Amino acid sequence: MAAQDGGAKMAAWARGVRGLLLDISGVLYDSGGGGGGAPIAGSAEAVRKIKASGLKLRFCTNETQATREKFVKKLQGLGFDISVAEVTAPAPAACRLLKERGLRPHLLVHDDLVPEFAEIDKTNPNCVVVGDAAENFSYANVNEAFRVLIGLEKPVLISLGRGRYYKETDGLKLDVGAYMKALEYACDVEAEVVGKPAKAFFESALAEMGVPPQQDIRMSMK
Amino acid sequence: MAAQDGGAKMAAWARGVRGLLLDISGVLYDSGGGGGGAPIAGSAEAVRKIKASGLKLRFCTNETQATREKFVKKLQGLGFDISVAEVTAPAPAACRLLKERGLRPHLLVHDDLVPEFAEIDKTNPNCVVVGDAAENFSYANVNEAFRVLIGLEKPVLISLGRGRYYKETDGLKLDVGAYMKALEYACDVEAEVVGKPAKAFFESALAEMGVPPQQDIRMSMK
Repeated sequence: MAAQDGGAKMAAWARGVRGLLLDISGVLYDSGGGGGGAPIAGSAEAVRKIKASGLKLRFCTNETQATREKFVKKLQGLGFDISVAEVTAPAPAACRLLKERGLRPHLLVHDDLVPEFAEIDKTNPNCVVVGDAAENFSYANVNEAFRVLIGLEKPVLISLGRGRYYKETDGLKLDVGAYMKALEYACDVEAEVVGKPAKAFFESALAEMGVPPQQDIRMSMK
Repeated sequence: MAAQDGGAKMAAWARGVRGLLLDISGVLYDSGGGGGGAPIAGSAEAVRKIKASGLKLRFCTNETQATREKFVKKLQGLGFDISVAEVTAPAPAACRLLKERGLRPHLLVHDDLVPEFAEIDKTNPNCVVVGDAAENFSYANVNEAFRVLIGLEKPVLISLGRGRYYKETDGLKLDVGAYMKALEYACDVEAEVVGKPAKAFFESALAEMGVPPQQDIRMSMK
C-alpha cells in the first residue's frame, strides 16, 4: 500500500514537471575517458527522449576551459543533440553581471575562454575574474591578478565556479576554487561565485529555459 | 605622579628582561630598498648596543627564500653583527618537526631553500612542505604538491609561515599563505604552520636563546 501511495505521489509530481536542467561533465560525458572524453552509456539517448517528450531542457555546466562553441562542438561529435543556445555556463553569466555593474575585468582564465569576453571592456580593470586557467595559473599571472585586486579601492573578485579539483585522463587537476581561495586570503575579500552552486546561476538557467523557479523543478546535478 | 609610577614600573620591568627576540625583514632591514635591501636607520647600532648590554638576543624570521647562511651573509654585508647560529627560521624548525614525526616531505619551496632540507629523507613522501616558492609556484608544481597531498591516507600539510604578501622593489608579491590556503581548500585539510605567528616557533626561539617562556620577555615583532 505504501509503495502504491509512493507511486501515486511520484506520478502526480511527474505531471507537474515542466523542465529539466542537466549537468554535462560527469553526467552526460566523462572527461576521464581518453581522446577528450567519452559519452556515459545511455546519456545521448536520454537527451533525445527528454526532448521528444516536450519537456523543456537546458544544459548547465561549470566548464570554463573553452568557449561554449568549442565545448558544444565536442559534445555534438560525441553524439549529443545539443546547441550553444541550450547551454548555461559561467562565462556568459559573468559577462551579464559585468555589464550590469559596469565592471571591467582583469581576466585570469584559460586562453580558450577569452573569446567569451570579446565584447567586454577590459581597459583600466576594476575587478578580477578567475576561471579554471590551468597552466595559465603561473606565479606571474596569479600575482598580476593579485596586484590588480589589492590595488582596487573596493576589491571585487568574481570566480567562475568554486570547484576544488577535477579528474583528467592524466590525473587530478586543481580547479578554480583553489586559486579563488588564494586570492581571497591574500586580499581579505570574499569572491562572488558565478556558476554552480550559486543560486543566481540556477535562476539564470531557469529564466533562459522559460520556467519560473517556483515550479517544482528537479535538477540532475552532480 | 601617574607618569612617575609608570616610570618606576617600566624600570622594574626592564630589570626583569633577560633577552630579546628581533624580527629581521621590515624591522632591521627593508627589503623594499634597491640592491637586495637596505638597513633601517639605527638598527645595526641597536643590535650592537643590545649585545654589549649583556641581554640575550636572537633573530626570528619567516624568511624562506634562502638558506640561513645566504640570508645572514647578506645582512652581514649590510653592517649587522649577526651569525647563522643566532637566527631562528622556519626551515630548520620544520626539519626538527619532520624528524620527530618520521615525516618525509614533498617540497614546494624556493630553490635556494632546498639545501636546508639536505639531511631529510624525501623518498616516498608522506607530507607536503610549502614555503615562499615565488616563481616555483607554477601550476605544474602546485598541482604536483596537491596530488601528493590528496593521495595520502592522512594528508599532512606543513606551511613555512602564513603571510599573505610582501613588498619587493618591483611591487607586491603573493606569499606562502595564499598557496597554503589553495592546498588547504583543495584537500580539505588545515595546514600546520611553522614560523610566526605559531606559538611553538616562538618557544623554539626562546629555547635556543636559553630563556624560559615564563620569563617576562618582550618581543619586537611585526
